Amino acid sequence: MPSQSVDPRTGVAFGPVIADDTAGEVRDACSRAYAASAAWGSTSKPARATMLRAAADALDAASDELIPLADQESGLGIPRLTGELARTTFQIRMFADAVEDGSFQEIIIDPFDDRPVPAGHPDLRRMLVPLGPVAVFGASNFPFAFSVAGGDTASALAAGCPVVVKAHPAHPQLSAAVHAIVAAALVSAGAPDGVFEMVHGFEAGQTLVSDPSIKAVAFTGSGPGGRALFDMAVSRPAPIPFYGELGSVNPVFVTPQAALRETLPKDYLDSLLLGGGQFCTNPSVLLIPAGTDLVERITAEVADRPAAVLLHAGVKDLFVRRSTQLAGIAGIDVIAGQPGAGDDPGFQHHAVLFHTSGAAVLADRAVFEIECFGPAGVIVEYADDAEAIALAEAIDGCLASTVHGAEGEPLAAELVCRLAANSGRVIWNGWPTGVAVTAAQHHGGPHPSTTNALHTSVGTTAMRRFLRPVAFQSMPTALLPADLRG
Amino acid sequence: MPSQSVDPRTGVAFGPVIADDTAGEVRDACSRAYAASAAWGSTSKPARATMLRAAADALDAASDELIPLADQESGLGIPRLTGELARTTFQIRMFADAVEDGSFQEIIIDPFDDRPVPAGHPDLRRMLVPLGPVAVFGASNFPFAFSVAGGDTASALAAGCPVVVKAHPAHPQLSAAVHAIVAAALVSAGAPDGVFEMVHGFEAGQTLVSDPSIKAVAFTGSGPGGRALFDMAVSRPAPIPFYGELGSVNPVFVTPQAALRETLPKDYLDSLLLGGGQFCTNPSVLLIPAGTDLVERITAEVADRPAAVLLHAGVKDLFVRRSTQLAGIAGIDVIAGQPGAGDDPGFQHHAVLFHTSGAAVLADRAVFEIECFGPAGVIVEYADDAEAIALAEAIDGCLASTVHGAEGEPLAAELVCRLAANSGRVIWNGWPTGVAVTAAQHHGGPHPSTTNALHTSVGTTAMRRFLRPVAFQSMPTALLPADLRG
Repeated sequence: MPSQSVDPRTGVAFGPVIADDTAGEVRDACSRAYAASAAWGSTSKPARATMLRAAADALDAASDELIPLADQESGLGIPRLTGELARTTFQIRMFADAVEDGSFQEIIIDPFDDRPVPAGHPDLRRMLVPLGPVAVFGASNFPFAFSVAGGDTASALAAGCPVVVKAHPAHPQLSAAVHAIVAAALVSAGAPDGVFEMVHGFEAGQTLVSDPSIKAVAFTGSGPGGRALFDMAVSRPAPIPFYGELGSVNPVFVTPQAALRETLPKDYLDSLLLGGGQFCTNPSVLLIPAGTDLVERITAEVADRPAAVLLHAGVKDLFVRRSTQLAGIAGIDVIAGQPGAGDDPGFQHHAVLFHTSGAAVLADRAVFEIECFGPAGVIVEYADDAEAIALAEAIDGCLASTVHGAEGEPLAAELVCRLAANSGRVIWNGWPTGVAVTAAQHHGGPHPSTTNALHTSVGTTAMRRFLRPVAFQSMPTALLPADLRG
Repeated sequence: MPSQSVDPRTGVAFGPVIADDTAGEVRDACSRAYAASAAWGSTSKPARATMLRAAADALDAASDELIPLADQESGLGIPRLTGELARTTFQIRMFADAVEDGSFQEIIIDPFDDRPVPAGHPDLRRMLVPLGPVAVFGASNFPFAFSVAGGDTASALAAGCPVVVKAHPAHPQLSAAVHAIVAAALVSAGAPDGVFEMVHGFEAGQTLVSDPSIKAVAFTGSGPGGRALFDMAVSRPAPIPFYGELGSVNPVFVTPQAALRETLPKDYLDSLLLGGGQFCTNPSVLLIPAGTDLVERITAEVADRPAAVLLHAGVKDLFVRRSTQLAGIAGIDVIAGQPGAGDDPGFQHHAVLFHTSGAAVLADRAVFEIECFGPAGVIVEYADDAEAIALAEAIDGCLASTVHGAEGEPLAAELVCRLAANSGRVIWNGWPTGVAVTAAQHHGGPHPSTTNALHTSVGTTAMRRFLRPVAFQSMPTALLPADLRG
């Protein structure tokens, strides 16, 4: 099905129709990427860093063209998209710095040891080398930072792997523009042709995952979509790693002391409704002590919030379905908004808040399993500390979990410990949205939040997803890769 | 099917019959391991190191009991098994040292940065934490080093994960003895009950991989067996990583200059027939320049070699089938021994050498795809440098590849480069058998040699298979794990 841009504020289509790539076109793109592998993988670290910076500079230089186009296609608004493009080019430059730094190669050198075995050993030198072409599936909710030139692309290119992007159909023109700018900047700076390819179309994505030239897949999107592609990747004659960053409940626990804080309702709604609630780190379940006035304060605060602009028709349809499903669960009340209320134009929808008790959630965990992507929040009142802890243990793997508490509160300490066992990131007195781009970041987590808990899609260690070790034994200096001669 | 020991030199069964574990017994073992996860995972690094050393000491202390039992069940011989037990306990102590060293936790601390985003960020501290219970499948060919207390077990325990071993039916008594010694030593030293469990039986292994408590699987064995378990691991509702170390061609290229070396035939056969040829790093294909006298020298040398003792009936049956299959390929000649020659007692079999041309192999790559585990070698004569390079490129992913050459020979340099692209380890003027236990080791490689090219089963970095990152954001010092407070 060909792609066409749609203004999500109005639901009106605009711009050119972009045809899907045929299976043959996808195979050709993969072949070009494969042909570029050796040259790109062996590009010197300073040269590769320079080329990545050229791509970042080219994107920044095109911001006046790109940001309005992104806003037209996504409805995310100029301020947010301005920040997101800055984050995207900052991220590319961070990976350029990491390439130059070189520690991503994880070099270990064990010189010849003449003791008898098992202590003695030949000269062994190990480093990480690129896997080969990587397929990257762009996400709709971050048209810059998790799409064509987002973290997956930047980390794969930095690792020395050519990239073939599957464009997201919700921003086809922006995808084409970003791809053209980055590909041209890389090649102008000396990168081989084929280092950065892109394809359009749902079936093109499946062909891409199956192509023998593709050596890894990075995906940000829904649980079912990710699982379907994961199943394809691992069913190949030669299975490949599939890094799926999927949905997540991202619980926020509020202790009795924190519940008193005045700005909590506002701060909660700011995070919950950021970007229309369309963050993979959206705090979709808020767990608060029973018997406070927090619910009243939140419902009063939400009344003033404008409708969220959802990214595309599919997001709005699914939001209505899922929020209706949540509303139908025994013990759940709708306390603000209404699932499927039809008076918002285009793909807009007002926030919907649900309320339930810890006992009800422990009896039917569906609240923790139904991902309602968009401006929806579930507020769970827990009866006591024991129930709060039981709830923390009942939650499946998460990208991010949060505790609002006070130091010295035993419940807070216990929650941090329990949540660390099942989350990629644990946040204290903050909000899960907004994933800092920095070396210590971990954006990942146990299943079902990702398909591979060992890896991150944000932060410098994201490069490791696309690298494998190789060891050289007793190799003469002249035959070693330059980086192992030291 | 219950296990019973069989003397592979004679084919005669001996000792007790060991029943398979039922599905309920496997689930109970997994539950005990799961129950031990929190305590074992949070055992301090010095304490965990001490417990691992206690296990190594207990195994060493029992060597007079264990080594003869291993020999009776495997036929590998006292000298080899003495070395293998020493390697095994050395390896456990290496992981104990790595635990104490602590760098395996890969801690990264990014203090609060008050610049505006994207450069500024909250305090973020990242470390690796254990995944939870790991299933380890023991291999028959290394009854100590890749079995009950081998590298997979040692690295998983060191990472802080309880282990449930699936015992290999070819050494059931040794498995029981090693398990009892290690479990007792760990628990005596203070480890929680359930930290080290073991099950017997083929179906027990399948139940193990499917158990929701199991968070990763490490397997050393055949390609088809590994693939079947891999498929189970990735088909679970919550897929888990499966680290399959499978078969490999492990090509050894000999350049024209190296072909002249006097000891090459002897050294080649020493490596090829080591342990009955039953090494995953066995150099099963030797590629030599056409027109030398190497084939004659090798066939003269092999005549004096005694029959290999194969590990069990299954290995011998498969060896006969696969070597017969190889002999039937057009363009291949048998130049020493005879597939299935029936006069060797028990599970013994004399070496079988095959000879073919590079052109024949390039026309039908079956030689590179049929794993003939045991004392079989294929010698390929290549016509010229271009054909040698084409052969290097035609080989699928390998654990280890070797070049015998001279510095300054262009062919040698080209081969090292090509083989590094598709191998886990590249060896110069040596032999692939004998995998040193050291930090820079990489025992892994692209598919089909493993199911996950990113990881190793030997060397300190093997621990990473069982660890996942977690990040703490803006966390007060008192609530951080002790290791992140620095």
